[in-house]
Formats: sequence, C-alpha cells, structure tokens
Amino acid sequence: MIENETIKHQLNHRAIRAFKDQTLSEEQLTTLYEVARHTATSMFMQQFSILHITNEEKRKQIREITGQKYVGANGDLFIFVIDLYRNKQIRKQMGNDDGRLHTMDIFFQAFQDTMLAVQNVINAAESMGLGIVPLGTVNDDPKAMLKVLDLPELTYPALGLQVGVPDQEPQLKPRLPLEFTTFENEYPRDFEVSELKDYDEIVQTYYDLRDANRRIDSFTNQINGKKLNTHQNKRDDIVEAIHSQGLALDFN
Amino acid sequence: MIENETIKHQLNHRAIRAFKDQTLSEEQLTTLYEVARHTATSMFMQQFSILHITNEEKRKQIREITGQKYVGANGDLFIFVIDLYRNKQIRKQMGNDDGRLHTMDIFFQAFQDTMLAVQNVINAAESMGLGIVPLGTVNDDPKAMLKVLDLPELTYPALGLQVGVPDQEPQLKPRLPLEFTTFENEYPRDFEVSELKDYDEIVQTYYDLRDANRRIDSFTNQINGKKLNTHQNKRDDIVEAIHSQGLALDFN
Repeated sequence: MIENETIKHQLNHRAIRAFKDQTLSEEQLTTLYEVARHTATSMFMQQFSILHITNEEKRKQIREITGQKYVGANGDLFIFVIDLYRNKQIRKQMGNDDGRLHTMDIFFQAFQDTMLAVQNVINAAESMGLGIVPLGTVNDDPKAMLKVLDLPELTYPALGLQVGVPDQEPQLKPRLPLEFTTFENEYPRDFEVSELKDYDEIVQTYYDLRDANRRIDSFTNQINGKKLNTHQNKRDDIVEAIHSQGLALDFN
Repeated sequence: MIENETIKHQLNHRAIRAFKDQTLSEEQLTTLYEVARHTATSMFMQQFSILHITNEEKRKQIREITGQKYVGANGDLFIFVIDLYRNKQIRKQMGNDDGRLHTMDIFFQAFQDTMLAVQNVINAAESMGLGIVPLGTVNDDPKAMLKVLDLPELTYPALGLQVGVPDQEPQLKPRLPLEFTTFENEYPRDFEVSELKDYDEIVQTYYDLRDANRRIDSFTNQINGKKLNTHQNKRDDIVEAIHSQGLALDFN
C-alpha cells in the first residue's frame, strides 16, 4: 500500500456525528470552497452550487426533515445543490432558449459534478483534521426541503454535509472486501451470499456510536432487512420533486 | 488559505489527456481500490463496484464509444458502476424479494456512493503524482456501453476514469469565482450575465491542449452554444438504458 498524508486520511475515514461547539474559521471555509471550485466538471458546465446554512431557523427546519439531532447543530452545515439555473440565466439573458437543460442527460452530468465536489470537500476537511458526515437525509422529505431552501427552478439539493471539529472517535467501519467490489474486465454474476460469512462476522464486531450498547447487525441481515424492504415513504417523492424543479424531464 | 499536501494537489487539479506508456503497479492499483473501499456510503449499503478494463478488445470498443483517443490507451481504464445487483443477490439468496431496489430513491443513493468513490480515487491518484481524466463519454451511447461491459441487471456504468502517469502539463483551467457558486442561506435569483464579463475574459486566456493553436471560447458563449443547444443524440438513451437495467423504475 502506498502511504502519504492524503491516503492516510482517506483510509481512516469515519463518519463523525458529534462535533465540538465551534464553527469553521473564514480561512477553513474559503479553503473548502476553493477545493470545491477546482473539482473536475463535466463539459466545463460547472453545474453545482453550495449553500452554507447559518440561519438558526433554517438549520432547525433542516434538522427536523432529516430527523438527525446533529444536523445544523455544532459545526457547519452545507447543502450541495445541483444547479442548472445559472446556466439557464446565461442562455436566457443572451436571448436563447433552455436547450437541453431539462434533459436527464444534463441532470445526470450536473449530479456528477455535484457529488465529485462533495467528496473533494470531504477530503480537504479531513486533511485539516475536521470531521464530516454526509447527509443523505436531506432527501427524507424532498418537497419540504425545497420549500425550506427556497430554491429556484433547475436546482436540486443533492446532498448535505455537516462539517466540524470531531467530538468522538468512532471505530473504522469494516467495508466489503475488494474481491466483492473490484473486477477485471468481467462483472461476475456468480456471487454467493455464503461467501460473505467472514465479512458478516467482522461487521458484527463493530460498535456503532449511535447505539453504543449493542453491536450492529451483520451486513447481509441489514441488506435483507428494513433498509431495502418494500415500503413507501416521503423519500419516494424525489422524482416528483426533481420534476417540479424542471429537471430530468425529457426521458427519451 | 490553508495549505497541506492534500489541498495543494486539489487546488492543482487538471484533467490529463496524455499519459506515458506505462500502467499502474499492483501497489498503486491496490491503494486506489482501498481508498475507494473506504469512501462514505449511504445507509451502509455499499452500492458500487469498479471494473478495471485491461482487455484490449474491450478497451478499443469503449474508446470507440467515447470517441476519445486517450480512452483505454496509455494508462489504466476504470469504469465505476452503480451496483445494486450484489444486494439483490443477497436478498434473493436469503429468500426475500427485491424490495426497494428498483426505486429512484435507492438508485439516487447508489449513484451518490459511486460518485463519491470516483472523487476519492481521483484525490488518491493525484496525491501519488498520477493524472486522471473523468470519462463522462462512457454515456455517449448507453446501450452500446452496457453491451460491451456485459453488465447484469441493477448495475449501470456511471462514469469512467482514465488514470496514468501524465505526459502533458496543461494550464489550470479557470473556474467560476466563488461569488457565483457559494451562498449563505439564500440562493440568489438576481444573477446577471454581465457580471461574468471579467470571468469570460479570464477563460479566454486559457489554452486548451486539445487544440493548442487557439484559445477557448468564453464561458457564457460555451453555455449559450452547442453544448446545451437543443439536439438529440444517443446520450438521450440514458433513461431507457437505466430502466432496461431495472433501475430507477418506480417514479412515485
């Protein structure tokens, strides 16, 4: 394994869900933004924006949507926004139509831009000794989130990120061994769940700080359980919400 | 600005499109995979895989789809795959149904997992002195790409990545100033294209090595031009291709 400062932090990644009562310095904030700004971008279209949520009322509303007490609490809260509004304004003010901005293709590319920027910021934050937790829960109620953020057409809040000074040191969470996730040339269809026996045992040795009194369930039991079992919830509003923003409309 | 090794590389990111005739060492390859493996993952569902394409015939076919001569040429070619197939197999072999695997919600999360892993690998590669170029062009003909990769249901090739030893040193490409992309609390709707005048001039000082003889067009002209102008091409097959894989089917 090659070792350097960057990789050391990457291999040591843990989600942090408890932060000290301290916000980012201007210098830290600017550095994270500059890193985001330098992320690779599809076709040089630069289709994401970042919202830094400092308003207490908004933080509270977002916390309620996510149902996670650490969201918008200690540290800094960012929402990474898929953003085609800016490019629409450019075209509109230059006398042009929306062109391909409403297609799934362009949405897909903007989503990619946005996610690459999130991970770039994660790596920068962790390199400074900060901790982060990605907030997929900003999509727990997509319509409510759009309302809280008051976002214009052609934008969508893809992912949240809480960043701060860690106030906990969780165990490293064991991930699937590489033999199950990295392949040469051919994707193997002959996966057998029994092959995960050893990994399942390793997962069960992990203590989740969210409930420090008990070990977590095996990986296969988690996948076979309620996370993916059939049910409907507000997360299923996501497509309606994306469409209501004028995005990913053109499916053919 | 905060300075460290990680951030130095991040701020110096350039897409590399010419690589030396040299492939990654086993140690480099394993390190990149281990970094990908340690990326944050939504709900611990671990829904991506990496295909390393070393087969010459496949590399050629992928190169043809992308229309880019450096794809699958010098260096190493990776395809980052949104992967819900593995979790389906777990559920199926444990006697369960597919549950929420076909929903947009779960697809969205798997897409996020996959993209975060791509950027994590990009940061690791660049920290080792390697160069990379993300290959959005693997989606230039989604149906053909699925055929070349022979992917099972519930998988989709989200993005390619060519990695290698740089054989060029492009200029740093100027990105939108932060005032246009980072906001506090409120997304500003009052964007005026005239505010981009200075940025447009900066962009025009950039020489693209893909056509070293001429400067590139201004940012606003690019956005107002053919990239986003209405036209149909095979990229618009993306939704049909995603659906044909059993993904993102349940839109409500």
